[in-house]
Amino acid sequence: MDNMETEIHSPASLSTIESEVRSYCRVFPAEFCRGEGVFLYDTQGRRWYDFLSAAGSLNYGHNPPMLKSALLRYIESDGVTTSLDLHTRAKRSFLQALDEVILRPRGLDYKVQFCGPTGANAVEAALKLARKATGRQGVVAFSNSYHGMSTGAMSASASHRRRNETYLSANWVDFLPFEGFTGLPHEFDFVRKLLRTRGSGIAPPAAFIVEPVQGEGGVNIASPEWLAGLRELADELGAVLIFDEIQSGCGRSGRFFSFEHARVQPDIVCLSKSISGMGLPMSLLLLEPSLDVWSPGEHNGTFRGFNYAFVTATEALRHYWASEEFRTSLQARGAEIEAALHNWSRDYSRHLVRTSSQGLFAGIQLDCEATARAIQETCYETGLIIERCGADADTLKLLPPVVINREELDAALRILGDALARHCR
Amino acid sequence: MDNMETEIHSPASLSTIESEVRSYCRVFPAEFCRGEGVFLYDTQGRRWYDFLSAAGSLNYGHNPPMLKSALLRYIESDGVTTSLDLHTRAKRSFLQALDEVILRPRGLDYKVQFCGPTGANAVEAALKLARKATGRQGVVAFSNSYHGMSTGAMSASASHRRRNETYLSANWVDFLPFEGFTGLPHEFDFVRKLLRTRGSGIAPPAAFIVEPVQGEGGVNIASPEWLAGLRELADELGAVLIFDEIQSGCGRSGRFFSFEHARVQPDIVCLSKSISGMGLPMSLLLLEPSLDVWSPGEHNGTFRGFNYAFVTATEALRHYWASEEFRTSLQARGAEIEAALHNWSRDYSRHLVRTSSQGLFAGIQLDCEATARAIQETCYETGLIIERCGADADTLKLLPPVVINREELDAALRILGDALARHCR
Amino acid sequence: MDNMETEIHSPASLSTIESEVRSYCRVFPAEFCRGEGVFLYDTQGRRWYDFLSAAGSLNYGHNPPMLKSALLRYIESDGVTTSLDLHTRAKRSFLQALDEVILRPRGLDYKVQFCGPTGANAVEAALKLARKATGRQGVVAFSNSYHGMSTGAMSASASHRRRNETYLSANWVDFLPFEGFTGLPHEFDFVRKLLRTRGSGIAPPAAFIVEPVQGEGGVNIASPEWLAGLRELADELGAVLIFDEIQSGCGRSGRFFSFEHARVQPDIVCLSKSISGMGLPMSLLLLEPSLDVWSPGEHNGTFRGFNYAFVTATEALRHYWASEEFRTSLQARGAEIEAALHNWSRDYSRHLVRTSSQGLFAGIQLDCEATARAIQETCYETGLIIERCGADADTLKLLPPVVINREELDAALRILGDALARHCR
Amino acid sequence: MDNMETEIHSPASLSTIESEVRSYCRVFPAEFCRGEGVFLYDTQGRRWYDFLSAAGSLNYGHNPPMLKSALLRYIESDGVTTSLDLHTRAKRSFLQALDEVILRPRGLDYKVQFCGPTGANAVEAALKLARKATGRQGVVAFSNSYHGMSTGAMSASASHRRRNETYLSANWVDFLPFEGFTGLPHEFDFVRKLLRTRGSGIAPPAAFIVEPVQGEGGVNIASPEWLAGLRELADELGAVLIFDEIQSGCGRSGRFFSFEHARVQPDIVCLSKSISGMGLPMSLLLLEPSLDVWSPGEHNGTFRGFNYAFVTATEALRHYWASEEFRTSLQARGAEIEAALHNWSRDYSRHLVRTSSQGLFAGIQLDCEATARAIQETCYETGLIIERCGADADTLKLLPPVVINREELDAALRILGDALARHCR
Repeated sequence: MDNMETEIHSPASLSTIESEVRSYCRVFPAEFCRGEGVFLYDTQGRRWYDFLSAAGSLNYGHNPPMLKSALLRYIESDGVTTSLDLHTRAKRSFLQALDEVILRPRGLDYKVQFCGPTGANAVEAALKLARKATGRQGVVAFSNSYHGMSTGAMSASASHRRRNETYLSANWVDFLPFEGFTGLPHEFDFVRKLLRTRGSGIAPPAAFIVEPVQGEGGVNIASPEWLAGLRELADELGAVLIFDEIQSGCGRSGRFFSFEHARVQPDIVCLSKSISGMGLPMSLLLLEPSLDVWSPGEHNGTFRGFNYAFVTATEALRHYWASEEFRTSLQARGAEIEAALHNWSRDYSRHLVRTSSQGLFAGIQLDCEATARAIQETCYETGLIIERCGADADTLKLLPPVVINREELDAALRILGDALARHCR
Repeated sequence: MDNMETEIHSPASLSTIESEVRSYCRVFPAEFCRGEGVFLYDTQGRRWYDFLSAAGSLNYGHNPPMLKSALLRYIESDGVTTSLDLHTRAKRSFLQALDEVILRPRGLDYKVQFCGPTGANAVEAALKLARKATGRQGVVAFSNSYHGMSTGAMSASASHRRRNETYLSANWVDFLPFEGFTGLPHEFDFVRKLLRTRGSGIAPPAAFIVEPVQGEGGVNIASPEWLAGLRELADELGAVLIFDEIQSGCGRSGRFFSFEHARVQPDIVCLSKSISGMGLPMSLLLLEPSLDVWSPGEHNGTFRGFNYAFVTATEALRHYWASEEFRTSLQARGAEIEAALHNWSRDYSRHLVRTSSQGLFAGIQLDCEATARAIQETCYETGLIIERCGADADTLKLLPPVVINREELDAALRILGDALARHCR
Repeated sequence: MDNMETEIHSPASLSTIESEVRSYCRVFPAEFCRGEGVFLYDTQGRRWYDFLSAAGSLNYGHNPPMLKSALLRYIESDGVTTSLDLHTRAKRSFLQALDEVILRPRGLDYKVQFCGPTGANAVEAALKLARKATGRQGVVAFSNSYHGMSTGAMSASASHRRRNETYLSANWVDFLPFEGFTGLPHEFDFVRKLLRTRGSGIAPPAAFIVEPVQGEGGVNIASPEWLAGLRELADELGAVLIFDEIQSGCGRSGRFFSFEHARVQPDIVCLSKSISGMGLPMSLLLLEPSLDVWSPGEHNGTFRGFNYAFVTATEALRHYWASEEFRTSLQARGAEIEAALHNWSRDYSRHLVRTSSQGLFAGIQLDCEATARAIQETCYETGLIIERCGADADTLKLLPPVVINREELDAALRILGDALARHCR
Repeated sequence: MDNMETEIHSPASLSTIESEVRSYCRVFPAEFCRGEGVFLYDTQGRRWYDFLSAAGSLNYGHNPPMLKSALLRYIESDGVTTSLDLHTRAKRSFLQALDEVILRPRGLDYKVQFCGPTGANAVEAALKLARKATGRQGVVAFSNSYHGMSTGAMSASASHRRRNETYLSANWVDFLPFEGFTGLPHEFDFVRKLLRTRGSGIAPPAAFIVEPVQGEGGVNIASPEWLAGLRELADELGAVLIFDEIQSGCGRSGRFFSFEHARVQPDIVCLSKSISGMGLPMSLLLLEPSLDVWSPGEHNGTFRGFNYAFVTATEALRHYWASEEFRTSLQARGAEIEAALHNWSRDYSRHLVRTSSQGLFAGIQLDCEATARAIQETCYETGLIIERCGADADTLKLLPPVVINREELDAALRILGDALARHCR
């Protein structure tokens, strides 16, 4: 029957009913069906190393066995699927695990708000809360930022604001350069001056919102010093510091939060993507308790209580983050990627403009979009799925599963290395 | 072990870590764990008829067996969990089922856009698309509307706009009365005049957005004539007609779309909540093909390709909506509810201001919030979970599973009847 | 020399340097040079009765002798021309006259704020102050309103908002129908319902802003009942009631303020146009003392202290408004216009849709723009300058000098009557 | 009678009726009545050198005899006072003089648009036109900018935007540093990077708006290089370059336009304040002909045709700007001021932070507001009126009449020098 269907409804015919807005399927046109660890399979039985990881939602790989088992048990027991913000056993277990495994060991004292299960919704909630708590309207966001597609989140997303005046409302957001954006010396002094000097035209904002590692913007990694400077500036101005860890969090950077590298503590953290551990929609905010000025129901959302996600999220925290071995392996894989990037930078210096990595979050900027696309296509043909990012779509973004083992990583990097060799010599 | 946890982490202690924004758990403080059909169970083994249905996300009841089986099979086979907008077998099957079971039999020719899996995100996408397609900014929304919590959706939500100037941007939305809001004769003529007469101050909008049955607003049901009038007006003005069927769709009204009652066809339909069939986050737009002016990736969202939801959604469409018996039973249950409302209106005319129902979407407006709350509390104590809605929170909102059988419905309505008797005599 | 210049620089050549934005000179292409009483003269010596009165800025006619003398004396004495908001003798005299002749006799206790000398600036100041005083953003304005061209004033101007999304920011303004706009019964009940019922989407506003007689909108006269209803509504909602008397004030309506007809007292009055008495730029607000919450300099403007205007304004108040004879004559002229309108309505019922007048503010709506334009052109050719207004530019707007005597009025109306006869039979 | 009035209505009592918004009269509490050349007189007969010049509206001093005569003749002849945008002889003469004396000799080919007679209205018109012409919304303005108090102008005014979220709408304005604002090297490179690099979050704007010499912002003078850089950037980005010459124009800088110093030609010039020559309200735009995309009447304003201002403006252009002697004297006075500033900088280096001057536009920044205020008060007591400016109100702003002669300038500077000596030693 499957075969018959395939004949009648090829992916091509699917396109005729799905909106023109679809994008990834234009680059990776296979019809996928199965995932296992680092591998993604299509209906023809072809297999790819998956360095896309559903845009960072599958940090622990496809169908991690412990999470899958926990979920199957939960479903078989007729566990409640979705429950708004009612108390459920599954939510309680998650909150407990989060507290025990993540927050307390790191000396963090945050409260937790569950949001509609998209990263954008967490960003919307964070901006609203910062505005309510401070009584201010302005928000400072950064060049190359990406925070989501809903109106509020998009208004703080540098690349999108640029082109979307048609349907985007002006929304009191000022954009300043993310570390390194201008390539000029004294860059952060510039930011500081504009914010601290009366008459600049940029009022002390309700909030700063920043991705400690920018993903869509080109894998740009803020240094500990820069983040500390921002923390200090926010304190001086009475502004809320929001870290969007939607893509950089949940182990992607080598630690649970990417801000752990900087020893800087934000007032609000946005988490989504990999927080559920196996790609189930989930999103939350961590809040400084003093900022929790919400009225009951003031920000809600139907699927903020999706218990399947709580179940897998709990298992992900307890299984991986309580494990010393997991954390050691993470460091090792990160080092291996860094070494590969180093070698490529040296070997392909003519075409390879810049590399960057933190843990298993890595970027390779090519000299132009065409080169990047050619490499991406070659990888796809030879068994590796890899995304592009950056304002000019000229950067390969590597998001391998953080559970990848040495052999798998070597093999995948070999595919990428061969593609680089082919197009960058 | 579970028992121990219960002692240490009672729901009360959960509250200390969860944000003040939580709301339903304040009204229904039990800790829930299991759902089966029309019943919701807590960790103490207590059982409730569930007329909340996760705000309408569980139209087919808790853990409908066919959907559950399909999902278990999918998970056991290591089906891809989440896949952005890549082609997957699960998505293809869903699109096929939607086309065969829902669209074609109704003569509908829509294209499908998958959105971030919240209703709000579908609304955001719809408004953006209408603005892009028409080159206009203005949107007309209606009194008592509720479309979601993100900035764009909230700016079209009557009740919320009222109080949230602090963090909501002005966004070119004009509000006009939903049918019956003013209680005055010629109400729609008023709407028509304001929109069709030069100089009114309300420009021909990009879109009208309306819930054919308003849920949060108090179970307000637009008549076929009113919806037809709106269709005509939108055509005259060159505006896009958007129906938000997030709560009213997927069988809630007695038909798949509530607009089927009116034989009026919108240009864009927003679906979410029960579209996945068992409470898994999912959201989509149906679009007139000519409106599909998106550029690739212009509106996206990480979890727009949550395959578990596609699997259960496919099964829901094929299992229920292809079944004549299901549709017959729906009509019968709707009639039974209508009869009960009729009797109560007669018996409790002093306290019962208004009832309304379409299919299994019913509202009972009491004379004040206090009465409504008292009835709600009594129901909760005696085994029925039921929500309140309306601008003054004075309306009981009945969202029983659409698969409820006669005996179950009788029993549940008896609980509600007893509570009415106690508080309305 | 003048003649030579005329040959070289005809009005036509002027057009080549003046922006395309010019408008009145396209309809009345003469080059004017002199004005005296009700007459305007061009450089060729032709003479027109002037019912345009510089859009209502010349209520006392051209160069009223007493005002002219006072101004000449002031200039000859080297009186300060412009002085920001410094104290000057001329300003003191004006404030005294305003207090003695206008405010006290009417039992009004307003404070006075001088604005940049445009009506728009007074409107901007009024809206800002209402927002500051109430802490609310929303403003309710009315269909066919016109309050000025700057961003804030334009955002409350119904006709202009309609077409200017390109350069106009959304600004929390809701538009509701001015009396009679919809032609439907219970019209004000609609307004009241939308504003008083929770869930309408229209928050209790900072302010209502309304012209008691709409000029640009088509000479629409609010009844005392309607204005009283608005006053009551504003009080209930805690909103500031702003009357824009920029065109309707200074005697145009037969009384100094048009709101005197209604015995309704607004919280803020905007005055400009004829307040200086002979066309000198001037603008002010009258404020309920409790609303005067400005910080020093919070709203300013260079020419808010133009002393020439104070001098002529003082003389206008003392010369005309202290005179019983002037007020009697005003009543008589108003009655004569009303009678003429009555007769024309009867005689030309096929083409004459509607007439309206209050004092010397009168409108004649024709069946279409073409008829109105033809009449306007015939008048211009036969010695009468008269403007058109209304959303469809189909209404003749009569703004004769309020000092016109019986013979002059008769003669001017005869010209208009002849033109009507020619085009409306 | 005047005496009696003075007793009854002292300035103090005036305050009880004038709004709290008044500001200058709190610093200079005299009641003024007469002005002659560089002198301002009060009703007590006291005399001040006037370096305030009505915020730069009286560049040619009080009541310049030739202008006064021309105005008296015009009034005596019953010249039309105000005429909207009708053609008048007075307007024609002004346009001719502007063309012959200012535009053509400078090789400028602008069209002229008359605006409501406030600088703010010219700014509003310029921003609207730039948005209409480019189809873009964004505007780039600069730190310490001041463009006026109406909503659109204020949204581009750095200092005011900072504090007025309450009543100011977000309006797509981005603020970047005016030359020298940050004190950092590569400052303009920052500006360039943020505007030219994709992903910065700042879209290519409709317009740049800048004061070549910032007045309210602290007498900050843009260098020719900086202005040329801006011109180049605007061209690259397809943006309109707007120079606000409202305070810096009409000879204040030593030339008619301050941008003549830079040999940079903007696309739109805003003029007001001293354009009428003797303080009569007037405002206009100069436009690149290709930008004149207005529809007739699209931006208007009642007092855009105030003929008295045309009369005095014409005389000012013909009398002063056609005179070689006047221009020579301007240079000499400018040099004398520069020399004085130089000496004071040297003598009072402990308290005197910065001086700046261009022509007769000069600023002296003190170490703090208190010092600046003390000097200002001493000056007032000893016969000199002088304003303060800057974000911290710590800068003395010198706006002497540009017609001041050497002796007068010496005398006035001596008063200031004495005050500096008293407070800065």
